[in-house]
Amino acid sequence: MPSAHFERIALIGIGLIGSSLARVIRDKGLARDIVISTRSPATLARAAELGLGDRYCADAGEAVEGADLVIVSVPVGASEAVAQAIAPHLKPGAILTDVGSTKASVVAQMAPHVPAGVHFIPGHPIAGTEHSGPDAGFASLFQNRWCILTPTEGTDPEAIERLAAFWRDCGSNVDVMDPQHHDLVLAIVSHLPHIIAYNIVGTADDLETVTKSEVIKYSASGFRDFTRLAASDPTMWRDVCLHNKEAILEMLARFSEDLAALQRAIRWGDGQALFDLFTRTRGIRRSIIEAGQETAAPDFGRQKV
Amino acid sequence: MPSAHFERIALIGIGLIGSSLARVIRDKGLARDIVISTRSPATLARAAELGLGDRYCADAGEAVEGADLVIVSVPVGASEAVAQAIAPHLKPGAILTDVGSTKASVVAQMAPHVPAGVHFIPGHPIAGTEHSGPDAGFASLFQNRWCILTPTEGTDPEAIERLAAFWRDCGSNVDVMDPQHHDLVLAIVSHLPHIIAYNIVGTADDLETVTKSEVIKYSASGFRDFTRLAASDPTMWRDVCLHNKEAILEMLARFSEDLAALQRAIRWGDGQALFDLFTRTRGIRRSIIEAGQETAAPDFGRQKV
Repeated sequence: MPSAHFERIALIGIGLIGSSLARVIRDKGLARDIVISTRSPATLARAAELGLGDRYCADAGEAVEGADLVIVSVPVGASEAVAQAIAPHLKPGAILTDVGSTKASVVAQMAPHVPAGVHFIPGHPIAGTEHSGPDAGFASLFQNRWCILTPTEGTDPEAIERLAAFWRDCGSNVDVMDPQHHDLVLAIVSHLPHIIAYNIVGTADDLETVTKSEVIKYSASGFRDFTRLAASDPTMWRDVCLHNKEAILEMLARFSEDLAALQRAIRWGDGQALFDLFTRTRGIRRSIIEAGQETAAPDFGRQKV
Repeated sequence: MPSAHFERIALIGIGLIGSSLARVIRDKGLARDIVISTRSPATLARAAELGLGDRYCADAGEAVEGADLVIVSVPVGASEAVAQAIAPHLKPGAILTDVGSTKASVVAQMAPHVPAGVHFIPGHPIAGTEHSGPDAGFASLFQNRWCILTPTEGTDPEAIERLAAFWRDCGSNVDVMDPQHHDLVLAIVSHLPHIIAYNIVGTADDLETVTKSEVIKYSASGFRDFTRLAASDPTMWRDVCLHNKEAILEMLARFSEDLAALQRAIRWGDGQALFDLFTRTRGIRRSIIEAGQETAAPDFGRQKV
């Protein structure tokens, strides 16, 4: 038996992350019983077709009854509604966590509804792909990735350790930090890259002088790398932008400032400034590869298409 | 014998593109004789060690003597110096081409030096990886990619067709357009993406509130996709910025305008505007995958590291 076995795990939301959790929980035997709930009847039916759980409930409150671990995997803007729906049904002693990409907002939305005796430990697995929905998940998604837990003060250390052990069983490394710092870190490593990617793809889409078919044909020269992020789930990313506003605006301001300086170097032909920046950025990629967070194969090891 | 056999091909510059050409020319039997020249003695010695050619010359002028096809693969800022060095040695009737990422500047730098009777046809294979140097090349680099030729007015159509046939033998599809339009198209599909990628990696590198080790650990959440482009050859990209200034500044201005609008939508919580943009951008990726310029596998089909 793995170190973090639960009698019953309830998964609220069964998209890319929820369905990957269902698969790894099953594969690794992390629960006796998996209960799945999601708002859309079509998605719930699809989860059942895929055999992702043992039981399927349209009602989130019903789904969490008797569960030892409840994992909420919904767009962060839906966190409060879910907390309200499940709060009266949570079992004393249960661990309640989530996987949302912003943490201060999730704490603000959910914590007030959590009954005493339930261990609320917000979390965020740093893993994903550009695909969404229950078909997109896979058991190895969390392998060798980081999961950040952001417990609030006074949380039972044993409950934190139990949840951390669960994530380690899923293949992840676990870090603990406060929600505000999480939101700042994620603003630069995740939120800004997505926003920039969405923006550049939008800019290209709007040009009159270059046709869409030209953008598509010649995209292998750089543009296509951005389109992966820009194909991510729109609802999830709308919510991230609305719920991590301050940190994102701070990072956007820095990015734009730096871009203005770079633009000036281009306008005035300052080759040395360009060369210096373009040299400095190489080192970061090397470090990411050395840290096992990226492949060293050229072009991400893309198969020739 | 392939449709585009040459008696002798001279490769001036033997980095990623030049050495990929050497390999595909050999593999497909596109020349009887491959002569290689590059400015750096160490790189030339390495090309010889790798057995990329039949003959190796420190002097570019000597290398092009008797060649039927001369391909210049150097940073675009070096184009004029190369043209001056080789011009007196070019064989009448030879085809002279290049692979530079900007075309109007290459025409301005090289055309004045090309002797009458030599067919000067600038070109640009839309292919590459983040790696550079003679070890980085591989024969299938051009497979299923586009090569753009930008002949100037009055160029012999037979010579253009011969060069196009050569690129098709290398595995590419060939398009013909004028240099100015090429530079505008590449500014959005290639130059802007690289500049943005360099810029965001620089911004992340400069933060005081988020450590470099945090950026590296959590990079799988989006950031790492940008680091591939930001690991490209600094000399090449400095030259691109200096030699396609007008088109790049135009695209940067549009990008920044759009980013300001997006930033405003975030600040004022305009969820509908965010959702609309984030939905529209999904379609472009689908089209790129359908056009065979990208893999549909999640995460670019990256091997788990």
